[in-house]
Amino acid sequence: MNKRIAVLGSTGSIGTQTLDVIAHHPELFSLEAIAGGHNVELLAEQIRQFRPKLASVATRDLADKLKTLVPAGTRVVYGEEGLIEVASANDADFVVTAVVGNQGLRPTLSAIEAGKHIGLANKEPLVSAGHLVTAAARRMGTSLLPVDSEHSAIFQCLNGERRDEVKKITITASGGSFRDRTREQLEGVTVEQALNHPNWSMGAKITIDSATMVNKGLEVIEAHWLFDMPYDQINVLLHPESIIHSYVEFKDSSIIAQLGNPDMRVPIQYALSYPNRLSSPAKPLDLAEIASLHFRPMDYVRFPCLRMAFECGRLGGTAPTVFNAANEVAVARFLRGEITFLQIESVIEECLNRHSAQPNPQIGDILEADRRAREAAAAIS
Amino acid sequence: MNKRIAVLGSTGSIGTQTLDVIAHHPELFSLEAIAGGHNVELLAEQIRQFRPKLASVATRDLADKLKTLVPAGTRVVYGEEGLIEVASANDADFVVTAVVGNQGLRPTLSAIEAGKHIGLANKEPLVSAGHLVTAAARRMGTSLLPVDSEHSAIFQCLNGERRDEVKKITITASGGSFRDRTREQLEGVTVEQALNHPNWSMGAKITIDSATMVNKGLEVIEAHWLFDMPYDQINVLLHPESIIHSYVEFKDSSIIAQLGNPDMRVPIQYALSYPNRLSSPAKPLDLAEIASLHFRPMDYVRFPCLRMAFECGRLGGTAPTVFNAANEVAVARFLRGEITFLQIESVIEECLNRHSAQPNPQIGDILEADRRAREAAAAIS
Repeated sequence: MNKRIAVLGSTGSIGTQTLDVIAHHPELFSLEAIAGGHNVELLAEQIRQFRPKLASVATRDLADKLKTLVPAGTRVVYGEEGLIEVASANDADFVVTAVVGNQGLRPTLSAIEAGKHIGLANKEPLVSAGHLVTAAARRMGTSLLPVDSEHSAIFQCLNGERRDEVKKITITASGGSFRDRTREQLEGVTVEQALNHPNWSMGAKITIDSATMVNKGLEVIEAHWLFDMPYDQINVLLHPESIIHSYVEFKDSSIIAQLGNPDMRVPIQYALSYPNRLSSPAKPLDLAEIASLHFRPMDYVRFPCLRMAFECGRLGGTAPTVFNAANEVAVARFLRGEITFLQIESVIEECLNRHSAQPNPQIGDILEADRRAREAAAAIS
Repeated sequence: MNKRIAVLGSTGSIGTQTLDVIAHHPELFSLEAIAGGHNVELLAEQIRQFRPKLASVATRDLADKLKTLVPAGTRVVYGEEGLIEVASANDADFVVTAVVGNQGLRPTLSAIEAGKHIGLANKEPLVSAGHLVTAAARRMGTSLLPVDSEHSAIFQCLNGERRDEVKKITITASGGSFRDRTREQLEGVTVEQALNHPNWSMGAKITIDSATMVNKGLEVIEAHWLFDMPYDQINVLLHPESIIHSYVEFKDSSIIAQLGNPDMRVPIQYALSYPNRLSSPAKPLDLAEIASLHFRPMDYVRFPCLRMAFECGRLGGTAPTVFNAANEVAVARFLRGEITFLQIESVIEECLNRHSAQPNPQIGDILEADRRAREAAAAIS
């Protein structure tokens, strides 16, 4: 096999690790198309290494600059239309969606409509419009393969098992940068402190989302859609070491778990190689060296964003759209120093309070709810 | 489906729990034939409850007694021939081998030759004559489904996976009754202390085997045969809580593990219901309640029997036969108070020193090596 891959968000954390996986297996994978954002130098370097036929950047100016840096064999496009072209209008079989936030919604839907299989790292579209994304994938017969370590774990634990024999799934949570702080101790924490995740090296948005536990909330909603799992069958467990990536309990009370050192290249590669497994440069897990693993019940008072995520998920319709959009804006504002860490929570809560969830929204309704929530989140102080 | 089951060793720990599983799913399982040992009262009670067509006890006298206690619909046989009849000469589809020790060898082979699928709890035959048992199963197209919690775990972890993508398997070991004692502190330990296993409630022989780590050695050899796994790909890890029952590492460094509270009804039921899973009365595992899991490297100086088991396994031929036979006799002598706990090890070692392993032994060679090893083990002081 040679799988032709398109990567949306190639210069981010997941994107660069995806290219690392592709580079390790040149006999199996080739890079067909690539989309970065503003980091033109890194994108040019990636293009020179992998020689994709198509590349996209954020703006026309950046596209003009990129053209001067890359070989003639790579066509350069830009903007949202460029991103959609990389997602859908080329010979890739498989699209890794690794952009950040709900800007990935249209490209993800376009890729599915074009019959591409999806390696789903960009979870916000599934949160914001899960019923539309999964319905499109079902209609087109394409796979939504998880790239998130937790969802990859659950997906692996379900191998060879029957869906109707699953009792529940448990998503583990490290607790993020501030897991050992009380709510009182969260007053006045800095951006730098929030960006210092204890286990995983990730992009800024997801690192902040981990600290607020919004990320786990997005993962719960993502799991609901990916695995067609009712919220009552989704559990979250605090597990500081991030070694057990998640697990499935079956009706015979047997639990199947997936474990490993925290290394995103493993779930990324699994999505690319599924149903096969390939060798990996990831450090093997040595439990004797780790010596102990710890677990605590999730605390929904300490982490109200996770409670809100479950509520939005159960409410359905546009509620998760608003949860996600409000969070995106709140995190951006926190990173810019406009609001405090704890205000991320209150911005989300306030946006949700102002919103009346609309059932069974279509794409226009989703985009409208998203836009309004962003406006509200930007104005709340 | 209605699976007709024969149970060899119905009055022991695994046997009674097997009947418990059958009783929980009367629409799926029926008891076709049953073999106990000397506990006629319990056997009679089981027969009255499950109404098997055939029952066997250890001796003719016990058979005469049993006949007076059970309904006319159950034919009563006895002795080794009776055991073999229960294993093979009836309408059972599936035979659970839960007798203790290598006395199960001929019945296990007979069951396989009669085309029965096997739920394998009696590991000694696979240790003693693994190449013969597995070859017979391959020839007859019957399944050897593990009942041991560790092997059931590995079997479950391999669901939906490719054998050639396995890097290694890890069998966990609680460490048994004396896991926190040094070798010096093993001088003069009593039978009662040795029988007090911290996690599992099991029969006497396997509980002693756990304390000497012989049981883990038998499990390593069992895993070698059940999963066609080279000894270099079998690892043993100390895990005091017995929550992770064992796990498989794949070549992408991903680990799939099976977890649960220690309850033998789960692996027993899985062997009976495979490839399906059924509801179980076993208490679900709550990792938040467990709070922590611990792991330590196996210590082959502290536990020389496990080192010997690996050596015998690698040597092959009659070496594992002798290891097992010497251990059976040594454990019986320890339980009778004839030798000390530490002498179990020295009896095994001495028997192995005296034996020249014969490659590719046939059944006669196995039985002869077994007999000689028992004689030697009975005489060593």
